[in-house]
Formats: sequence, structure tokens, C-alpha cells
Amino acid sequence: MGHTPYLRLDVAVMEANIAAMAVHAAGAGLALRPHTKTHKCRQIGARQLAAGAHGLTVATIGEAEVFAEVCADLFIAYPLWVDTDDAARLRALADRGVALRVGCDSIEAAAQLSGLPVEVLIEIDSGHHRSGVRPEDAGTLARHVADAGLAVSGVFTFPGHSYSPASPAQAAVEEASALATAAASVRAAGGECRLISGGSTPSAGFTTGGVLNELRPGVYVFGDAQQLELGTIGFEQVALTVVSRVVSHAGGRVICNAGSKALGADRAPWASGYGRVLDAPDARIVALSEHHATIEWPGPLPALGSSIAIVPNHACNTVNLADEYVLSTGGSWPVAARGRNH
Amino acid sequence: MGHTPYLRLDVAVMEANIAAMAVHAAGAGLALRPHTKTHKCRQIGARQLAAGAHGLTVATIGEAEVFAEVCADLFIAYPLWVDTDDAARLRALADRGVALRVGCDSIEAAAQLSGLPVEVLIEIDSGHHRSGVRPEDAGTLARHVADAGLAVSGVFTFPGHSYSPASPAQAAVEEASALATAAASVRAAGGECRLISGGSTPSAGFTTGGVLNELRPGVYVFGDAQQLELGTIGFEQVALTVVSRVVSHAGGRVICNAGSKALGADRAPWASGYGRVLDAPDARIVALSEHHATIEWPGPLPALGSSIAIVPNHACNTVNLADEYVLSTGGSWPVAARGRNH
Repeated sequence: MGHTPYLRLDVAVMEANIAAMAVHAAGAGLALRPHTKTHKCRQIGARQLAAGAHGLTVATIGEAEVFAEVCADLFIAYPLWVDTDDAARLRALADRGVALRVGCDSIEAAAQLSGLPVEVLIEIDSGHHRSGVRPEDAGTLARHVADAGLAVSGVFTFPGHSYSPASPAQAAVEEASALATAAASVRAAGGECRLISGGSTPSAGFTTGGVLNELRPGVYVFGDAQQLELGTIGFEQVALTVVSRVVSHAGGRVICNAGSKALGADRAPWASGYGRVLDAPDARIVALSEHHATIEWPGPLPALGSSIAIVPNHACNTVNLADEYVLSTGGSWPVAARGRNH
Repeated sequence: MGHTPYLRLDVAVMEANIAAMAVHAAGAGLALRPHTKTHKCRQIGARQLAAGAHGLTVATIGEAEVFAEVCADLFIAYPLWVDTDDAARLRALADRGVALRVGCDSIEAAAQLSGLPVEVLIEIDSGHHRSGVRPEDAGTLARHVADAGLAVSGVFTFPGHSYSPASPAQAAVEEASALATAAASVRAAGGECRLISGGSTPSAGFTTGGVLNELRPGVYVFGDAQQLELGTIGFEQVALTVVSRVVSHAGGRVICNAGSKALGADRAPWASGYGRVLDAPDARIVALSEHHATIEWPGPLPALGSSIAIVPNHACNTVNLADEYVLSTGGSWPVAARGRNH
């Protein structure tokens, strides 16, 4: 028990989630490279590797520096813009024996990477419309990157448009189609395309081998309220909650002390509220302040002072607010990469 | 210059904001007790005190422990539910010579406070519908709290319904009306009502003395995109930005490396986007991932690798994601109370 609010991790549920994704990936013929931005915790990364992951994914150089302590094969799945200082940090990681891959979606960014000991994956847009080139443009960019003296080993995407009800299956189809186009474009331009990497937690279950050969889901390790409401998981697969205390019954509702500074303020347009209550599926978190969650609660209200476990909407942002996990098995693990945005 | 993204504080603008609110409060006959949850920084709290604040407001016992180093008069403006461990922490603060006030909105929570060296303020709901009793019920609760052996010194509210366009002036009127009713209720029940405390940044400019004798704004110290879009401030009053780097021009838009893990995910229904760009008022941040802001940018795009200063929607949650402020005057200040949710 920590002071409320605190981050509680059900280790058995997490281990079941890790094992299930490993089985799915192996069955589909996909190498699994989990995204560690979700948990930011070395102990959890080590468990994913022990369960068969062939490397880890990170979002920033700072996360790579943390996970280099447990893994020598890291993919910074981000279109890095590397300055002199960043270049020195990447070299230092390589000097520690870490095999590094980085993302790239422009000639200009590739020029910044020139001479560095990294493999490059071309980022493509498979429908999320964030970073990444059009699939049919991957070959042209790959040739320019190779001309800059860099090793291009493949293409990657994040099918973030899977984050909408009824979209996950369709997003997986579009991801595979876009990656197939991109790989063909790279090969037509005379390049190698050994790695074809995608994946998100909502789409992962719909992803089979054939086009992709690598999967990078992140949130599956914990589950969260977004995954519940997308239908990806059930409550029994939720490993992470924010344990809070009921501090008020004002207005006939439950007010507890986990607000946006503990849960995060994420709320997708299709979400039913600012998170879910683990043991009260019909309760709805209708408002969130920094230190208050306002919950409409059917039936008798839980007593003032009692504990409420809240399933956050978006686990990745929740974890980044905490310094440690309080484990169901006793003890705690540090959120070692908290705040490592650069 | 830190690695992007980082939190940049324009010290001159901040000092002007601090001075302006001090002048407003003094002119209105209101004691100023700024809410430090916004900045979580001792150096800034000390400057607010030097400018005439008669004490500081905090949201948690953990914040009180941090600000006790610069201030001996703290109000925990929250309906605390105090357990044995919390009680020991409050006693330790009092033993350090800190005068403590805490909020209360139930008989049950008052019982938990019994015997502690704290003054109690009754929290009332003035229209935000979060915690707090109805104004007309303040007297009954005050009598019960006094019967539990505690010193009740007044009433307080947070007019959070000021956070909507066209609402700030009306929220200030409703706040004053509710506090007047509550104070009358306490006095009718035979209690003392020395302190009548309210305030939020959007409503502060519309708050005059008469009913209230204390004001507790927080965000005014920095300003943020919510205040810009509510019309509370102009861009010239923005002291806090997240400095980010342009990493992609995918889709003809600007993608920069400040996402929800640097800015926070707050987005009110009436907000134009996920923040604003300081030097490009017509740009709109249309999407936010953990490490990407997607910006629709009128006119020529800023070059890849260039810096963009983003005004976050909600400064309080942004600051809680960072470990330090990079100062416009050189050097840095720690966000000493980051993560102090309990």
C-alpha cells in the first residue's frame, strides 16, 4: 500500500498478457518487438525479452539509454532529427554494444544521421496521417538515404487509426497493404527490404504474417480503458490501475483523489469517460480535475475513505506521471524512463 | 538550451504577471494566496510572496511539504481524507512552524481531522459541481466540525465553471453569491466566518472585494492556451512554452516532437486544438500523440530541425511532466513538487 493515488500493477495479469502476445506473434510468424514507451520499466522489458521478444522498441534516445541496460537490440521508432549532441548519444549507445535502428521520413533527416552507426527504417503513413511518407514514395527516399551512406534495412509504420471503434481490423488490412506497397517500392528502387514492421495493440490481433515480419504493440502489456472500450480486451486482462480514495460524496456522486495528474487527461471522442472503475463496470468518470475524478455511480456509493481502482484511459501517459509501480506481489519497480522525452 | 522538448520560462513575463495580479488583488481589497499547483516550484512561490501574497495554496500534503521550505502559512484547498500516516505528516508540518488550513466537505472527513493542529475551511459548491456542500448547508457542517473539536475559520470554493467561453464574469458573480450564502449560514449557526476564499484565473479579474476576502488563482503566473482562448490574456502575457523541434513535414503539415508526454493531453471541448504556437497565432495543433504534435500551418512551413515554442493548453498538467524550467535569464529551476499527488 502506498499513499493514494498510486499505480498498482497486477503482476500475474501482466505476465499472462505478455505470454499471450508472444504466442500470437509466434503463431503468426511475426517477430515481436514490444514498444516500451508504455511501461518505461526495465523489469518489464526484461520479462518481455524472456518471453521471446527479439528486441525492444523505444520512442526517444533517452528511453534507449534506459533500456540499453537490459537489451542490446533497440529500435527508436521515431523520425529522429539528430543534432550534434544527439549524435554523440547514439554513438555512445553503439559503443556499449547496442544495435540501433532509427526511423526516417525525409532526406533532410537522413543527412543528419549520416556517418552514425545506425540502421535506418523508412517510415510510411498507412492511414494514421501523422509522420511517414506515402507508401509509393518509400523507394525514392530509401535510395536517397542509401546515397547518404546509410544502411536501409526496411520499412515501418504505426497504424494509429486502429484507435477507433470498429477500426482495428480494417486498420490491420490497410497497414499490410501500405507496407506491401512500400516494400515493393524499395525493392523496385534497387534497395533491400529485410524488415517490414508494424503493429499497435488494437490491430495486433488482426495482424498475420505474410507482409509484415515484425510487430511492435505497446499497451497490451497492461491493457487500459481505451482497449476495454475498443473491445480489444476484457476487464480480466487489465493489469494496471490507479488506486485512489473516495474523498467526497458531493452531489450524490463519488469524488476520488485521482485526477489528471495521476490518470492523465486523455479522452478520445468515443470514450465513455476519463477512465473506468475496475470493480464497477457501470460507473462512469464524467469529469476530471487535477486531483479529483467525479464518478456517477449506480447503486449505493462506496464509503468515504474507501479505495477505488481506476483503469486509466491511456496507460502510456498514466505511467509517465508516476515514479514507481506498487506490485501485487509486494515491493515496487521504478518507472526508470519517466519523463525521458528527449 | 536543453534537448527538445523542454519547458521554457520567460522570467520577465512571469514577473509582470505576478505583479499585475498582486496589484489587482490589493486594489480589490483581497488577500492573495496563489495556488502553487500550477508551478510546483519554490523559487516561483518565493517571488509570489515577495510580491505581497500573504500565504500559498497547495492541493496535497506532498505539495505542502515542498512549499513549507519557503512559506509558513499554507492552505491545502482540498477535502482531505486523512489516514494515520497523513495525520503524522500534518503534525510534522505544524511542528516545523507551518500554519495549516485544510478543506472539508463532510462530517466523516472532519472526524478524521479531529485532534490535528489545523484550521478548517468548509468547502462549498458555487456552480462547478465537483466537491463541496451546498452553500446553505455550510452552517450545519461548520457546527458539526466545531463539535468535533476543530477550529472552523471560514468557507472556500473553486469556481471552476469559469473555464468556458463567456463564463468567467458570470462565474465570479455566482461565486460571490454562493460564498455570501455560505458565510451567512455559518454565522446563523453560531460559527465564525473570518475567511471567505475563492478564485480562479479566468474569474479573478471580475472578482471584487465585499463578499470575498481572499483570492487563490494559479495559472495567471504563466498563462496558457486555455487562458488565451478564454480571452483572459493575450500572447504577450504567456510566460511558459514547450520548446520543440520540427521533425517531419509529412502531409504538408508540421510535425514536432512535443506530444502529450510533454504538453499534457488536456483539450477542453471549446479549445481550438491541443495548444497554440507562440509565434504563429493562426497555426492549429490538430492532433497529438505521445511524441508528436501535428500542426496545420498557414503559409510556408518552418524548416525541418527548427524550433517551435508551443503554448500548452493547461499549464498545471504540463509542468507536472517536467523536471525543470529552462529560464530565459539562464540556468534552470527544479519542478520540486512534480508528481507530489499525495
